[in-house]
Amino acid sequence: MNKLLIVGTVAFDAIETPFGQTDKILGGAATYISLSASQFGVKSGIVSVVGGDFPKEYLEKLNEKDINTDGIEIIEAGKTFFWKGKYHNDLNTRDTLITDLNVLADFNPVVPKEFIDTDFLMLGNLHPSVQMAVINQIPVRPRLVALDTMNFWMDNALEELMEVIAKIDVITINDEEARQLSGEYSLVRAAQKIHKMGPKFVVIKKGEHGALLFNNGDVFFAPALPLEDVFDPTGAGDTFAGGFIGHIAKSGDISFENMKRAVISGSNLASFCVEKFGTERMEDLSQDEIQERLLQFKLLTQFDIELS
Amino acid sequence: MNKLLIVGTVAFDAIETPFGQTDKILGGAATYISLSASQFGVKSGIVSVVGGDFPKEYLEKLNEKDINTDGIEIIEAGKTFFWKGKYHNDLNTRDTLITDLNVLADFNPVVPKEFIDTDFLMLGNLHPSVQMAVINQIPVRPRLVALDTMNFWMDNALEELMEVIAKIDVITINDEEARQLSGEYSLVRAAQKIHKMGPKFVVIKKGEHGALLFNNGDVFFAPALPLEDVFDPTGAGDTFAGGFIGHIAKSGDISFENMKRAVISGSNLASFCVEKFGTERMEDLSQDEIQERLLQFKLLTQFDIELS
Repeated sequence: MNKLLIVGTVAFDAIETPFGQTDKILGGAATYISLSASQFGVKSGIVSVVGGDFPKEYLEKLNEKDINTDGIEIIEAGKTFFWKGKYHNDLNTRDTLITDLNVLADFNPVVPKEFIDTDFLMLGNLHPSVQMAVINQIPVRPRLVALDTMNFWMDNALEELMEVIAKIDVITINDEEARQLSGEYSLVRAAQKIHKMGPKFVVIKKGEHGALLFNNGDVFFAPALPLEDVFDPTGAGDTFAGGFIGHIAKSGDISFENMKRAVISGSNLASFCVEKFGTERMEDLSQDEIQERLLQFKLLTQFDIELS
Repeated sequence: MNKLLIVGTVAFDAIETPFGQTDKILGGAATYISLSASQFGVKSGIVSVVGGDFPKEYLEKLNEKDINTDGIEIIEAGKTFFWKGKYHNDLNTRDTLITDLNVLADFNPVVPKEFIDTDFLMLGNLHPSVQMAVINQIPVRPRLVALDTMNFWMDNALEELMEVIAKIDVITINDEEARQLSGEYSLVRAAQKIHKMGPKFVVIKKGEHGALLFNNGDVFFAPALPLEDVFDPTGAGDTFAGGFIGHIAKSGDISFENMKRAVISGSNLASFCVEKFGTERMEDLSQDEIQERLLQFKLLTQFDIELS
């Protein structure tokens, strides 16, 4: 069984959407990535940090999904990272109301012994210096290193981010971030420029408009499943990344052909994530549901036009 | 050979994009639809109206593509419909600077004898009363009637538009128009409501984000081809509609499976349209280029994930 190490935030989220709002619930990039990747039967572990206020039940939830939480440092005297956001009516845009870094402000990641030889490494969205610290603790380069990041780090830590980007194989960012990072409006041109920064594979997430996978000259597109209702988009991008890396870690296949399946897997899992608040839908998701929806993705995209 | 009758504007356009601008050039919904459909070797004709200022060479251009222009009335004393627009930097939005209806204001369409028994009818975007007048001139219902319209008619002639929509098989509109027409934000829900208005098939165009085809419970998605540069989006939606109806008219197959191929064909042709100003690219397009790009659509979307 391949090992998959996931670095990222484990957090409290408070979410407001047009359909309701939550108090502090389980959130964070590493949480969503690991819950999504847990569907693939890989040996996964998280590197993160929480405060003394973080409920043991939340860690147990992750452990129940066979997610190793030994790498989640608990700082008893500290408070867990907290994010509060409010989505606009279209659910495509949101305002961040609160960002309390708390224990995340001085986070020194430590990779647990068991994952020092991880086969796959997923660097979830957090400070690039933390992402780099994890890369540097792994003596033999993993078979594939994927990174997710966001515009905040492009604005505030671009130099460090570029150093991380130079060392990875796959980057997953959204369309606006790809434009910001590359200075190109066309996503095709943006991907070309980002290739030159390091990653052989560039995944551009377009939310409800799907995701593009670029590998130099080649391009593949995975649509988002058209849904009657999107309830809460929080974590959809991380869930996509988790499905992507989970599929690859399970198969052990890092070819472009298999990455196509991986982006479909990621889109598939993200389509569930948005159906309920926070991690709720991801916690009770079954293999049967996943397989049934994969069939929907096939029906949605496959055609048999004849070439003359 | 199946007959395809196309109703719509034949016009002068003046276009401004971030890449340049044109004087009055050949434009209009029926022009783009017919140029696109002409790639499929069907017997197509246009019903429209122009003024005495409309160059004979433009009509000849259409005739050279085997497009019958007998149904384009020429009002010698009148002036041709003129539209001037300016695209914003993202090319996704535009301002209309001039709309001179001219001869279009009092247009009484007359279907030429040769097309009274048309097999397929494409009602391009213009006043719903003109669309209805054409429907009423055809004694035996065509095998498929498709309609393209826009928000302008929803704002200004909703009652007449709804009467036309009740009589057609396929509607093609963009995402914002689908939302306006249905009052639903979710495109899945929007399509459900629009089905109830009449059309069995609902095609929602999302520009650079592709197009969705709904047939009651079934849904298919055709992406737009990711392009390095979009030069001028004018006519892309009409070109899509022309590729869609052209494919169906050629094959004579109105099944959902074949409509999937039709939306891919439409997306394919639209991807050429935006590469140059106005109709320029559509005029010199070859079958080889079309076939080559169809292969790109296959590579872009086809995957072989295994269902367990």
